[in-house]
Amino acid sequence: MSHNTFGHMFRSTTFGESHGVALGCVIDGCPPGISLSEADIQPWLDKRRPGQSKYTTQRREADQVKILSGTFEDDRTGGPVTTGTPICLVIENTDQRSKDYSEIRDKFRPGHADFTYLEKYGVRDYRGGGRSSARETASRVAAGAVARKVLDGITIRGGMVQMGTRNTSVRDWDAVSQNPLFCPDAAAAVDWAVALDKIRKSGSSCGAVIEVVAAGVPAGWGAPVYAKLDQDLASAMMSINAVKGVEIGDGFAAAAGSGETNADEIRVSGGKPAFQSNHAGGILGGISSGQDIVVRFAVKPTSSILTPRDTITKDGEETEIVTKGRHDPCVGIRAVPVGEAMMALVLADHMLRHRGQNG
Amino acid sequence: MSHNTFGHMFRSTTFGESHGVALGCVIDGCPPGISLSEADIQPWLDKRRPGQSKYTTQRREADQVKILSGTFEDDRTGGPVTTGTPICLVIENTDQRSKDYSEIRDKFRPGHADFTYLEKYGVRDYRGGGRSSARETASRVAAGAVARKVLDGITIRGGMVQMGTRNTSVRDWDAVSQNPLFCPDAAAAVDWAVALDKIRKSGSSCGAVIEVVAAGVPAGWGAPVYAKLDQDLASAMMSINAVKGVEIGDGFAAAAGSGETNADEIRVSGGKPAFQSNHAGGILGGISSGQDIVVRFAVKPTSSILTPRDTITKDGEETEIVTKGRHDPCVGIRAVPVGEAMMALVLADHMLRHRGQNG
Amino acid sequence: MSHNTFGHMFRSTTFGESHGVALGCVIDGCPPGISLSEADIQPWLDKRRPGQSKYTTQRREADQVKILSGTFEDDRTGGPVTTGTPICLVIENTDQRSKDYSEIRDKFRPGHADFTYLEKYGVRDYRGGGRSSARETASRVAAGAVARKVLDGITIRGGMVQMGTRNTSVRDWDAVSQNPLFCPDAAAAVDWAVALDKIRKSGSSCGAVIEVVAAGVPAGWGAPVYAKLDQDLASAMMSINAVKGVEIGDGFAAAAGSGETNADEIRVSGGKPAFQSNHAGGILGGISSGQDIVVRFAVKPTSSILTPRDTITKDGEETEIVTKGRHDPCVGIRAVPVGEAMMALVLADHMLRHRGQNG
Amino acid sequence: MSHNTFGHMFRSTTFGESHGVALGCVIDGCPPGISLSEADIQPWLDKRRPGQSKYTTQRREADQVKILSGTFEDDRTGGPVTTGTPICLVIENTDQRSKDYSEIRDKFRPGHADFTYLEKYGVRDYRGGGRSSARETASRVAAGAVARKVLDGITIRGGMVQMGTRNTSVRDWDAVSQNPLFCPDAAAAVDWAVALDKIRKSGSSCGAVIEVVAAGVPAGWGAPVYAKLDQDLASAMMSINAVKGVEIGDGFAAAAGSGETNADEIRVSGGKPAFQSNHAGGILGGISSGQDIVVRFAVKPTSSILTPRDTITKDGEETEIVTKGRHDPCVGIRAVPVGEAMMALVLADHMLRHRGQNG
Repeated sequence: MSHNTFGHMFRSTTFGESHGVALGCVIDGCPPGISLSEADIQPWLDKRRPGQSKYTTQRREADQVKILSGTFEDDRTGGPVTTGTPICLVIENTDQRSKDYSEIRDKFRPGHADFTYLEKYGVRDYRGGGRSSARETASRVAAGAVARKVLDGITIRGGMVQMGTRNTSVRDWDAVSQNPLFCPDAAAAVDWAVALDKIRKSGSSCGAVIEVVAAGVPAGWGAPVYAKLDQDLASAMMSINAVKGVEIGDGFAAAAGSGETNADEIRVSGGKPAFQSNHAGGILGGISSGQDIVVRFAVKPTSSILTPRDTITKDGEETEIVTKGRHDPCVGIRAVPVGEAMMALVLADHMLRHRGQNG
Repeated sequence: MSHNTFGHMFRSTTFGESHGVALGCVIDGCPPGISLSEADIQPWLDKRRPGQSKYTTQRREADQVKILSGTFEDDRTGGPVTTGTPICLVIENTDQRSKDYSEIRDKFRPGHADFTYLEKYGVRDYRGGGRSSARETASRVAAGAVARKVLDGITIRGGMVQMGTRNTSVRDWDAVSQNPLFCPDAAAAVDWAVALDKIRKSGSSCGAVIEVVAAGVPAGWGAPVYAKLDQDLASAMMSINAVKGVEIGDGFAAAAGSGETNADEIRVSGGKPAFQSNHAGGILGGISSGQDIVVRFAVKPTSSILTPRDTITKDGEETEIVTKGRHDPCVGIRAVPVGEAMMALVLADHMLRHRGQNG
Repeated sequence: MSHNTFGHMFRSTTFGESHGVALGCVIDGCPPGISLSEADIQPWLDKRRPGQSKYTTQRREADQVKILSGTFEDDRTGGPVTTGTPICLVIENTDQRSKDYSEIRDKFRPGHADFTYLEKYGVRDYRGGGRSSARETASRVAAGAVARKVLDGITIRGGMVQMGTRNTSVRDWDAVSQNPLFCPDAAAAVDWAVALDKIRKSGSSCGAVIEVVAAGVPAGWGAPVYAKLDQDLASAMMSINAVKGVEIGDGFAAAAGSGETNADEIRVSGGKPAFQSNHAGGILGGISSGQDIVVRFAVKPTSSILTPRDTITKDGEETEIVTKGRHDPCVGIRAVPVGEAMMALVLADHMLRHRGQNG
Repeated sequence: MSHNTFGHMFRSTTFGESHGVALGCVIDGCPPGISLSEADIQPWLDKRRPGQSKYTTQRREADQVKILSGTFEDDRTGGPVTTGTPICLVIENTDQRSKDYSEIRDKFRPGHADFTYLEKYGVRDYRGGGRSSARETASRVAAGAVARKVLDGITIRGGMVQMGTRNTSVRDWDAVSQNPLFCPDAAAAVDWAVALDKIRKSGSSCGAVIEVVAAGVPAGWGAPVYAKLDQDLASAMMSINAVKGVEIGDGFAAAAGSGETNADEIRVSGGKPAFQSNHAGGILGGISSGQDIVVRFAVKPTSSILTPRDTITKDGEETEIVTKGRHDPCVGIRAVPVGEAMMALVLADHMLRHRGQNG
């Protein structure tokens, strides 16, 4: 049972609402002796932080993470290391701008979880979406930063490879940090920025596709049948707000191919197996093959737009709604660090699970 | 930890290899008092059973299910009902045709789990793929049949909506059982059959996209953050052999849309909320909205083909391999009943989980 | 996997060390719509709080609980209610008295977890025992207070029924709050206090047996085989620091009885089954019978004493140690509210689990 | 959620009723490459098997175990080894003696789960107790036999150390297999047998205390707070039918001691820590210390006796019942191999969990 916990051996339980006191997570199962301080986590949070460009929500949050437990000075280095006990990370909410919430209190925003939360629970924290806000993903990024420390020798990189109807096949990962769209194609990023600016000014929004790649994963992680590595990646990515699709390797394109084109043939190179292609996305039978793990996920267009949409009130009366306020014209941008974090969480969990069963 | 268990409250643990003695599952958490006999399960297994048309493997298996535990005569009806204790279902393997396995024992078939299983475990049952064989999905279909009994009032239907490069937007669910391709478009099925016959004769294969729809699911099932209904569906479908992508509602197409086109506006009809479209696929914020739940998944082309492919032996020598034997030119066909079963398992689990927390 | 999580549907994950920044818990799975504020939790923490009598550690902690998430104003009452999302409770550590920790940093205290933590993790927060400190039980009491709110109509009471070699068969639950020993026998409490004072002054310690009784639990909670109600109570109580034994109903005394004396015969009273005795402690076959649930657990004598004990340093040299500082001569006293809290957590979890499977 | 599953990484899910077709278990998470055949399991089942002496039920069951999955020939030895996939073990029921079940169908046997199962589920397999029968423990013993294979270098031994009011402090483990009472005191066994014969002939029954000791467990297994090794042992033993109490090391006797007497002082011997006593039972702070793990549990007297007891029918009418048939005068005897099996399951699980987190 895992309503708010992700992972099995490396587990992160998150808590907190968009406009509550604070949010954060408790990480359980982290191996001991790993060097860890706030400085290892903060840069990843900074990458996801709102208000950094005109393309992301203008909410001003410092997103300063604080470690409440689970680390202690190391005998040898004197620096803080994990102790194997739960690591609680807390981020205070500081910009809960006072505002009139009567619109979203009483009306269901199409595309949002307003209606379903109320149907399920009978009560909800409507301020900024409460628990269903993308703000929860800050906790994921914080937990993912700890997972990265566990994954010594593994590199996880992500970028926006499609924005609305525009896409790119360029994967220049170094370019990602050089443009506000986290796009791995510097030239495309310039064009896309112009397009997104237009969308932003018109009060509209667009969707995106994000790709995340993990290099350096050894062969043998994952497990057959119901703990497949690709299964857990699908679960991880689909759990991110606004995600509507996930694919591994060739993904949906594989459906249109043939057995001949889809085969990743194998040769020997340097005494080791050398796959000649990576249609499989680094996973065969749910288990890593040693190739790059390649995942993509689709993010729907931001539901909060300035064009009025038909909806109903919680009392069942027809009305319409415009979602004003601070919003991202393309939530896919900030989904890049979140997708990377989820990749890290899945891999750290499977690293420990594999080690547990197979030594 | 769930290497071979699916679900939390309604749980199915499967066991068995392709060419072992038997396979099956243990279902734990089933509500008591539900009428259940082998006759409730067998028809679904028959639908998935191999050897029924020239488009599926010619292996001859009776796939007769046997209930070993968990049911007992009802006081009132005298008929067998579930007792709330574990239901063990067993299917014996009967057609383990004696055959020379030296090829697949010593060489890694591209696209198969041969290499990764051996990397992970150091030993594997190579006969017919062992545990990684699609034969494991018989256990899923059996468990799904029990889940359907729990889901009173809910209809789950699926079909092949794309075969290779051909696709259809027709969703005539009654047509599915009328053609050997499980296609919800009778006309397309005729054309596709011709194309598939050609693929089969050439020893090649093709991929597919399967759509599964659940109607009658009440609003409120699922749970936020890490137990989202769409997340668990993604996990369920990606756990099926050969699946490389999953999408909910508009899925990847949503990435190319705008906030305006993607909004499912709401009106009132008959005193109840009436969504004007279903881009969301029946799930908002991870929770069912009362609309149809719509999932699609991509199945890669069968890896077993007659054209030789480059590979290596387990001793690291370069060679090539042709996978002879009884195989499906399009494994997507038999993935239809499996996808339906996984939908049923996810929904039954969430029904109980919702009832547990919310009464 | 539950290294720091207790429960399945009603789950509490705790974090924090004795002398860290803070400790607390995240409660996941709580039903929505339950009135909850800090005022519902604080009284139970106050009962467990150190420094209230000369019989408990003189550490001065306010133990003020703060709710960080999971509650929101109710539409109807305006007061705060649970929303069904994770409830994070935090208690700051305030009295981390500056002190020389070199003794317990370098030497293993007999009866403490110093040696085993270091063997397991290679690093440990030695200040006040770190994560192995009984201070962690404050998180349990806080979580238990929330569980009590879920258990409408159920009364949970506990008391110290044996202190060292002295025991009582009196169960005057109203007396418990009237004496500093939480003893349900007012007369015994006076005698025991004199004895304990002597033990305290001599720098020694004694053990205890605690009994916890839940009244009002309906028949049918628990589940057969590996989710027995008594099994989960045994797990719950044995997880409390210093507990070495747990028994249900007649417990170990049952071993000395016969089938005739141990049978709880049944008559009818007021149209309902009326058990004529309760040797079973309210549980048959792992499922509640509707009678009082009766659990007892043994707490070992406080390991921190003033008499020097032989031990070794972490470098493997023989030495001896005296544990000075603020300690309880009988940790069993403060185990009373902790045992009650664990009973509440087990029952709340099983209430939801039962409702999930059986409606 | 684990109604019928025990363990986390090394998991056993059991199924089956006393008079159903078969019973058994599915073991998930077993490390690969471990030599395993039916011959490794059968001797433990034979030890537990009914009908071997006049002191155990005269039901005649062959209790032949069959491995349905999860093993395959090893490349090097040719012999069967585990493959890391689920191991399904099945035991057919053969002696379901035709008999009149109307008594136990309609009346609740005091001390049995008849009443509570019916309250919980509304339906039950009343034949021989159905799922609540001690026959389920055959599955535990089978699973425990596999766990023992994983626990290379660890010796698990158990015996009956108290029968009714008689007890012994002798622990001659070699004596256990030499007497039908599984008593580690050969002289006591002779006396006790006489006493038990008298009890048997009078149609009465008595309780017992079983001790199980594991030698060779390294320091560091277990985990703090909610995955304590003693907690999981308490859970394991309390889950066995008829068990009413569990204690570790000194257990309840510790409550009557002092900090001085309870301390396990430490010296150095052969360059390693040498505990001078083992009051703790080999566990400190929930983690193994390297000393023997010592657990005891109390088994209540068999509820099935020849003296009539007052009870009611399921229709609520007062009556009385005598439980005729094939029963054990002291079910504690056959609890010895079951307790050993549960110890093995707990240790195998914690071995893998420890290795997962700590490498």
